[in-house]
Amino acid sequence: METLVNNISIEKSSSSKIGSVDFDNLPFGSIYTDHMLVCEYVDGDWERPKIKPYANLSLDPASKIFHYGQSIFEGMKAYKDEDGQAWLFRPEDNHARLNISASRMAMPELPKEYFMEGLTALLQLEKDWIPTTEGSSLYIRPFMFASGVGFHASPADRYTFLICLAPSGPYFGGKVKVLIEEKFARAANGGVGYAKAGGNYAAQFYPTKLAVEKGYQQVIWTDDNTHEFIEEAGAMNIFVRINDTLLTAPTNDRILDGITRKSILELAKAEGIQTEVRKVKVSEVVDAAQNGSLKELFGAGTAAVVSPIAGFGYQGKDYELPELENSFAKRLKKRITDIQYNKVEDPFGWRFKV
Amino acid sequence: METLVNNISIEKSSSSKIGSVDFDNLPFGSIYTDHMLVCEYVDGDWERPKIKPYANLSLDPASKIFHYGQSIFEGMKAYKDEDGQAWLFRPEDNHARLNISASRMAMPELPKEYFMEGLTALLQLEKDWIPTTEGSSLYIRPFMFASGVGFHASPADRYTFLICLAPSGPYFGGKVKVLIEEKFARAANGGVGYAKAGGNYAAQFYPTKLAVEKGYQQVIWTDDNTHEFIEEAGAMNIFVRINDTLLTAPTNDRILDGITRKSILELAKAEGIQTEVRKVKVSEVVDAAQNGSLKELFGAGTAAVVSPIAGFGYQGKDYELPELENSFAKRLKKRITDIQYNKVEDPFGWRFKV
Ligand SMILES: Cc1ncc(COP(=O)(O)O)c(C=O)c1O
Ligand SMILES: Cc1ncc(COP(=O)(O)O)c(C=O)c1O
Repeated sequence: METLVNNISIEKSSSSKIGSVDFDNLPFGSIYTDHMLVCEYVDGDWERPKIKPYANLSLDPASKIFHYGQSIFEGMKAYKDEDGQAWLFRPEDNHARLNISASRMAMPELPKEYFMEGLTALLQLEKDWIPTTEGSSLYIRPFMFASGVGFHASPADRYTFLICLAPSGPYFGGKVKVLIEEKFARAANGGVGYAKAGGNYAAQFYPTKLAVEKGYQQVIWTDDNTHEFIEEAGAMNIFVRINDTLLTAPTNDRILDGITRKSILELAKAEGIQTEVRKVKVSEVVDAAQNGSLKELFGAGTAAVVSPIAGFGYQGKDYELPELENSFAKRLKKRITDIQYNKVEDPFGWRFKV
Repeated sequence: METLVNNISIEKSSSSKIGSVDFDNLPFGSIYTDHMLVCEYVDGDWERPKIKPYANLSLDPASKIFHYGQSIFEGMKAYKDEDGQAWLFRPEDNHARLNISASRMAMPELPKEYFMEGLTALLQLEKDWIPTTEGSSLYIRPFMFASGVGFHASPADRYTFLICLAPSGPYFGGKVKVLIEEKFARAANGGVGYAKAGGNYAAQFYPTKLAVEKGYQQVIWTDDNTHEFIEEAGAMNIFVRINDTLLTAPTNDRILDGITRKSILELAKAEGIQTEVRKVKVSEVVDAAQNGSLKELFGAGTAAVVSPIAGFGYQGKDYELPELENSFAKRLKKRITDIQYNKVEDPFGWRFKV
């Protein structure tokens, strides 16, 4: 059966998997809802998006996605409030960033109305999949890849954009210990680190595996040239609290311009917390850890929201962070999730009604 | 119908497309043969490779290849001699490099016998597809990607390895002009540039597009930190001839260890050409172009073999290279292709009989 909503054709699945899902014990990103949005770029133009039953994709083995990593993605969440109303958080910023990534990867930009209307129509259809358990949400994965074929190392002539949904629990369980990287790097100067390009993530797996083998959960990325400056925490932006000042690195072409990062910065200012956006030296963090002025380290990103770091390793030594009464991480996490779940006023206009 | 060769099951296609192919006007890498090799990594182990009719792949949209760029590939060629015998060139080195790439991308290594036996069985089956026109060959594309699913940024638990074949003409047509890159970079220190990882190639598309818009065909990559050193030419290694010395950059973690590059180095030595493997400054190349000591620039790689560069742009100025009588590029290209096509003795033991 096919219906039309917002000019988007909807082919409904004949049955739902929702009854088989344990919403009280959700993993992160590995259960998918009944439908997905699909939009094809053919002959220099995007076709209208369609909503279809979630199903396998059929692709020529010569599709460039398999060979040249021409792919980008976004990560978002839908939240349900106590009245059962669904909300998004700054979704237009995800659309804008998708197109920044697209441009760097020589892929076509996606029209805003296809993104916003497609997303809204899909979420309205899958509303029952948004979890309501504390700490859970519906993770949203918009992504685009080269479906055009050829073994010539050049951009494809066809692309596919999809949105899939995964009801998800927390990204990390337990305390997070991190390793400050001294050898590997995630991004080059003049490279694609500021794009949410698929290949950036696979490149992190091996160094992260080595860190995990040493007992850490994540890598703190430093600049590839000197390894003297702190840049990101795994796939999150990083915040450093020294005494009562909150520091984070300025974005550049190696660092993803995180929506959580910029929201946290605004929230901190509104809370009267002193913030500084400037390059942060590893040595400064180590010194602060040694003299007791390092109060907190935390990652910030959509998946993990705010992820407090319990300790870090650097040059073979381990440093522990104190457990604080008045943690900025806790306070800011509560501020941002209260807005996301529509528990408080939203003076910034960040919430978006589905 | 299924048969077994070298323990590899072969399912033959019911008909062949070969009759529809114009072997005198072959494009590069966009016509595929009737069969492909497929090998699946499941539950921590590789299943035996299978040969099947070339057909679309069916993949869950949550497969990590679409999201995290976990993919690697190789590029090889099969050559046919005048007696109709098929040959490969140093195929074991491609296998070794595939596994170096796999390790860096946190992917499972492929057993050598699966690679070699699978490749041989596939080529024996597709022997008639190896072109015999001058400058043509059967391009071979082994590749591996993450077929396991999940929106967690971590290595997949399933992988697929394939080999596809494409009868191909020359990679470049006409003269190649290049632009020495001053802003963008293809690889980070401590990154994945030395791996044949998919994402490295997509990252080059946009800077290359900008160069093409300015009238160049390829970008000469420089180090991402200073842009003072010449590293690669598009997806080729680069050679610089100053007076009668042939220079090329040493491999490092930003540069692919090309099989053509190392073969050219050995052939040059055997020809009595003086070679130097050392860092090559952009300023040195520009100075040499100005004072007339820059005789040749050429790229070296499987796809384009040896690709003479007619001129380059740098800091808004264009430099032309002379047309030489006794070009090293021409001489070395002839030496290597004579070995590849079994026209001369192979004192190095590089040729491999299919
Ligand atoms: C490398 C990297 N840094 C930071 C972030 C955080 O960005 P956002 O807050 O928009 O989710 C992400 C994405 O989640 C990321 O992939
Ligand atoms: C980045 C890069 N450099 C150099 C080469 C040349 O390597 P090879 O001679 O093994 O084909 C390739 C592959 O073709 C490549 O992708």
